[in-house]
Amino acid sequence: MISNPIGFDAVEIDPAGRFVKIIDQTLLPGKEVFLELSEEDEIAEAIKSLRVRGAPAIGIAAAAGIAVVIMQSAALSSNELEIIFGRVYEKFSATRPTAVNLKWALDRMKRKFISLKAEYLCAPDRLRAELLKEAQLIKAEDIEMSVKIAQFGLSLINDGSRILTHCNAGHLATGRYGTALAPVYLAMERGMKLKIYSCETRPLFQGARLTSFELKRAGADITLICDNMAATLMQRGFIDAVFTGCDRIAANGDTANKIGTLSLAILARHYSIPFYILGPVSTIDSETRNGSEIIIEEREGKEITEPVNGVEIAPEGVKTYNPAFDVTPAELITAIVTDRGIFRYPYNFSF
Amino acid sequence: MISNPIGFDAVEIDPAGRFVKIIDQTLLPGKEVFLELSEEDEIAEAIKSLRVRGAPAIGIAAAAGIAVVIMQSAALSSNELEIIFGRVYEKFSATRPTAVNLKWALDRMKRKFISLKAEYLCAPDRLRAELLKEAQLIKAEDIEMSVKIAQFGLSLINDGSRILTHCNAGHLATGRYGTALAPVYLAMERGMKLKIYSCETRPLFQGARLTSFELKRAGADITLICDNMAATLMQRGFIDAVFTGCDRIAANGDTANKIGTLSLAILARHYSIPFYILGPVSTIDSETRNGSEIIIEEREGKEITEPVNGVEIAPEGVKTYNPAFDVTPAELITAIVTDRGIFRYPYNFSF
Repeated sequence: MISNPIGFDAVEIDPAGRFVKIIDQTLLPGKEVFLELSEEDEIAEAIKSLRVRGAPAIGIAAAAGIAVVIMQSAALSSNELEIIFGRVYEKFSATRPTAVNLKWALDRMKRKFISLKAEYLCAPDRLRAELLKEAQLIKAEDIEMSVKIAQFGLSLINDGSRILTHCNAGHLATGRYGTALAPVYLAMERGMKLKIYSCETRPLFQGARLTSFELKRAGADITLICDNMAATLMQRGFIDAVFTGCDRIAANGDTANKIGTLSLAILARHYSIPFYILGPVSTIDSETRNGSEIIIEEREGKEITEPVNGVEIAPEGVKTYNPAFDVTPAELITAIVTDRGIFRYPYNFSF
Repeated sequence: MISNPIGFDAVEIDPAGRFVKIIDQTLLPGKEVFLELSEEDEIAEAIKSLRVRGAPAIGIAAAAGIAVVIMQSAALSSNELEIIFGRVYEKFSATRPTAVNLKWALDRMKRKFISLKAEYLCAPDRLRAELLKEAQLIKAEDIEMSVKIAQFGLSLINDGSRILTHCNAGHLATGRYGTALAPVYLAMERGMKLKIYSCETRPLFQGARLTSFELKRAGADITLICDNMAATLMQRGFIDAVFTGCDRIAANGDTANKIGTLSLAILARHYSIPFYILGPVSTIDSETRNGSEIIIEEREGKEITEPVNGVEIAPEGVKTYNPAFDVTPAELITAIVTDRGIFRYPYNFSF
């Protein structure tokens, strides 16, 4: 993949390590506000408040953030830097405790720090430069992962394909290009004409706020629907394939993803439409045998009863049920598209 | 059925014909504002602005409205009343041009007026009193319809049943009790404990705003979910049956109802959960052979992009697709519960 379809990345790292630059995703699509963050507290706040979100993007932001704090510190010794590193590591880890990628990226930075410091006579400035390089590498590898998913996924797309997607597994959630949307961007770059439908994705509207924003910005033919309209689109023959991301894939292929994914998989099966999950092999957790072992986070009811700006649409005190994810059984997934190739049912992952 | 589960009706007719009393449904569930309407323009505005909504409730409001205007007019002759009647009839008809029940109720009032006026020496005061009686009769017959649906539908409910519903086919949409919700109210009156789940029903949130309001008011065990959460509820074994209303039923049983109904029917079939449509036989249009002949209204995209109070959640100018209804094929409908009994697939209506 050559071009950046949006013109910017969710997380950009200043080459001189002075700041991490993010677009404030809480203000999208209404306002495009870019933030240049260099203080540890403002970086932590940005992650905690979802100004940057999407598992890979969070990992990159945290890694870049810790590098920037180290770069900017006036510490004169590697021992002093170690104290700062430890403090920032703890602070960033606490921002989104369940985000696996955040922890993974911070741990990778920590290992790098420890191995550098162990080197005989590693000067603070070399430590600084190497940490910055490591953060840049994390981002570059993430982009490479997306490019591979794009290349494999492209084989599932034809000129004129009409694709339904859910939530945001795109450019804004990753280093660049996305997971579910990466093949879409590659197909566009190759001159294919696609028609994309995005489910709005209640309760938090990531499909409306983010996916339709980035696809529109990229010049895609994007149509926004409410989640409950997917069935009628399929019934009318408007959809050729469903592409979604994933939060966790069990060894047998059962896949946890944003709430509403299961519904699309069942509808797609009913109408004999292929249903694809796209994500890096790092999403596969072969320790989890099947979906029944995946614990689903339940979030507060306010997300349902106050959809926008705290305006209540339901009677006060009404009970709600708000699972953040659902689990799609492997047998409903036509194929899982990863950076190591396309896998088809039955799945038996041992990564 | 004995009790009024909510304590008021969507449309109440002053026994002296001085006003029609409605609860302003555009303000629910946040504010309970009752309006006593006697001017033709304010009644027309209330129907047009959805202060009163739901096909049967609109019909009752229009019939009662025309009776009240005639009751309150100072006209001294039946000829004068006829001029007023004609003007109000036209005004009310224009408020919701596609609402079949509105037209039906107004036409019934018109036939009554014409037959009364044709009677030798029918005095204006008798005309007034008879029109008011006719409006009261329309409401009473509608309530009787709901009671019958409740009685037939009760056979599909057990103590402890967990029922999923969509949109609002309840007390607020009818003379009393509702269609889909009528058996729920009857079951509660009989002391059965039920657990009801209501889909919020995007884009207009009738499930959140109205169904959860009226069920909570009635003391039901009601849980609100987003539309895309229904699949996970069914997967977990939380749902025993789906009950929804209907806007139009074709001769072969294909049923148009609020967008999202089709999705629930497919999910229910996938999980072998019975899916029931409830409505009066007057909803059956045996002139329409099947669902492909039903034209689906597409509404403006703002309903999707501005969910609450005009706050935009999608990028400006994004394309949308906003069908107000969908068509559920007859083969996915376990049974259609009417005021004349329960019909099971295959359907062949000739009402």
